Amino acid sequence: MALVVQKFGGTSVADIDKIKNVAAKVIREKKAGNEVVVVLSAMSGETDKLIALAQKAADSPDAREYDALISTGEQITVTLLAIILNSMGYRAKSFLGFQVKFWTDTAHKKARILAVDTEVIKKELSMGTVVVVAGFQGVDKENNITTLGRGGSDTSAVALAAVLNADQCDIYTDVDGVYTTDPNICSKARRLDKISYDEMLEMAMTGAKVLQPRSVEMAKKYNVPVYVKSTFSDEGGTLVTKEDMDMEREIVSGITYDRDQAKITVTHVPDKPGIAAMLFTPLSQHNIIVDMIIQNASLEGFTDVTFTVSKKDLKDAQKIIQETAKTIDAKNVEVDDQVSKVSIIGVGMASHAGVAAKMFSALSAEGINIMMISTSEIKISCVIQRKYTELAVMVLHDTFGLEKKSS
Amino acid sequence: MALVVQKFGGTSVADIDKIKNVAAKVIREKKAGNEVVVVLSAMSGETDKLIALAQKAADSPDAREYDALISTGEQITVTLLAIILNSMGYRAKSFLGFQVKFWTDTAHKKARILAVDTEVIKKELSMGTVVVVAGFQGVDKENNITTLGRGGSDTSAVALAAVLNADQCDIYTDVDGVYTTDPNICSKARRLDKISYDEMLEMAMTGAKVLQPRSVEMAKKYNVPVYVKSTFSDEGGTLVTKEDMDMEREIVSGITYDRDQAKITVTHVPDKPGIAAMLFTPLSQHNIIVDMIIQNASLEGFTDVTFTVSKKDLKDAQKIIQETAKTIDAKNVEVDDQVSKVSIIGVGMASHAGVAAKMFSALSAEGINIMMISTSEIKISCVIQRKYTELAVMVLHDTFGLEKKSS
Repeated sequence: MALVVQKFGGTSVADIDKIKNVAAKVIREKKAGNEVVVVLSAMSGETDKLIALAQKAADSPDAREYDALISTGEQITVTLLAIILNSMGYRAKSFLGFQVKFWTDTAHKKARILAVDTEVIKKELSMGTVVVVAGFQGVDKENNITTLGRGGSDTSAVALAAVLNADQCDIYTDVDGVYTTDPNICSKARRLDKISYDEMLEMAMTGAKVLQPRSVEMAKKYNVPVYVKSTFSDEGGTLVTKEDMDMEREIVSGITYDRDQAKITVTHVPDKPGIAAMLFTPLSQHNIIVDMIIQNASLEGFTDVTFTVSKKDLKDAQKIIQETAKTIDAKNVEVDDQVSKVSIIGVGMASHAGVAAKMFSALSAEGINIMMISTSEIKISCVIQRKYTELAVMVLHDTFGLEKKSS
Repeated sequence: MALVVQKFGGTSVADIDKIKNVAAKVIREKKAGNEVVVVLSAMSGETDKLIALAQKAADSPDAREYDALISTGEQITVTLLAIILNSMGYRAKSFLGFQVKFWTDTAHKKARILAVDTEVIKKELSMGTVVVVAGFQGVDKENNITTLGRGGSDTSAVALAAVLNADQCDIYTDVDGVYTTDPNICSKARRLDKISYDEMLEMAMTGAKVLQPRSVEMAKKYNVPVYVKSTFSDEGGTLVTKEDMDMEREIVSGITYDRDQAKITVTHVPDKPGIAAMLFTPLSQHNIIVDMIIQNASLEGFTDVTFTVSKKDLKDAQKIIQETAKTIDAKNVEVDDQVSKVSIIGVGMASHAGVAAKMFSALSAEGINIMMISTSEIKISCVIQRKYTELAVMVLHDTFGLEKKSS
């Protein structure tokens, strides 16, 4: 008897008929003799509807209340699935963050998981109950409802798989696996059978939407095997697992892009020790994540600092950085919200020379200007004008021969 | 400085603009220097939408899950009001059943309040916070979400007023007070300035929808002065309070009706000790409330038993009573779902003879047949064919001269 965690995303629970389809997948695992924990997202569109309500109520909704509001989306899907399973003769119970005790910190809208109690869940599993847990939500130590940020249900599922020591964590979604790039903009994209945690993490962090980066990080940390599967088909699937030393290392495994990028440049910044901290501490205090940072060579004691943030943080970041700029006597704050980030990812990259040069040449041959570059052992990212996103992805997919499996 | 509990019903929080109107009423109390606890229902129609979802998921939705599902309606309104108040510069926090600790028993869908913790609320009030509590919901001792039954938010509000020893409990609704009868079916209905707990309780129990009976019972028990007011107008209002010995006693203060009635007759029941218990115990075990009961005079050791239940319980009640009928060797179970109950209520009734006779004559003069009768010190109820409901109400309103204030 195995313990399986199944997570279903918003499109998989979009209406009652789809939730009945989810129930069928749950029952299949039960019939196979497994213990089953199910994690659900809200119906697709529901969270956006709730966010729109909050924003109609106030320009900057109070974060505590916002979390308590949008967490209702998952409450609806988990109770509906439990109702359906019970009506089909399978004992099932829904659990919200406060009922599991899914403990998080108090950073509303992007809370981090501190601990997950397993007592109640284990007791229910031992009685044969299908345990249906609301994804995306938790509680802080004062019983305030928190949410884990967009896509947080993946993280909920992997965290549960980790603390319960599950044999498997299946992430059901509307695609049938992880692809070399987004099939919606590149028809040559190819599904991967297997991908390492590190590559998946880089792909998720640079724009692949199939899994939330934090869920991959957690899967890696606790060595949880994650299967990305389609809710609507039994074909395909991608296993995200630890790196297999026997398998051929691809130079480049995937191409990702992220249109949710904005670029801020602070000009004529006095170049002295501590200035970077002065610029970026206020942003981190407001929970704004800065992605890439470039600092120009200093000229006569002054420098320009350019960095990227998520588009949705741009307004807040701009306000904060304008105040900081005044304080530190910088000249100007310039903003560009028409940029994208395109990345290539591959574990083989570290042991192959010339990958970066090949990427830059390919982009340049298409007249695509590279504004910023950032690299890791297994990733190279470039910030480009947003209008070239699709072109860049297709060119790089060809350049690195991702269409057919390289040897 | 007074402590005021304000409760707003579904039509008062039907959309963001209406919730902003509620915020204005809250702020008015704050500006008057009062401490304010607000209790909200779900947006009107929202609970019905959630119930429809549950019923689309299963014919008989699991009660625990049903409660967790429909309690989301209040979660949405309380967080939205707190968002609006905070954005207007008033510190406000929403509290759900599990956050207050609004303890109830485990009778899902019609849970009873066991205790309400005041610690968190008092702490927040002392800091000047507007405390916004989700009506209708609680938790049992195992942290399962429970709901108090339709209109339960009134009870939530009065319970909070009681435990907090509030100076006043204002029930805001879409009508401007308690009327001699439903103005929608009788244009001569007159608003009452004041009504006693006992009369209000009888009116609520016999069909007046303005307050939930349990809320009136609780108000009486803890002597909470309840004002029924309009959300949309500052005029009018009715004070529900303890009986004032100085005031003239009306013979009849109000006429109510309840179309949500169904009649069940069990024929040829062996008339022996314990038979009533055998008939009605299984119903109460399923939380089905039996209203009126008539047992015919015994004939040759057999009798017929007729009783009424709420229409929504009819299907369940019929199933249960059919099994019981088999067990006790009764002949038949007959059902009539086309009945109504019409009642006259008045504290003066006890000291006036002939009130019942006057009621029966008035109905009979219109050709309305009386199927069942039940009386209390201050109430007479008749079960009649549903099609005569409106006629009966208008006739009785005239008969007892409720249009103008009697002396």
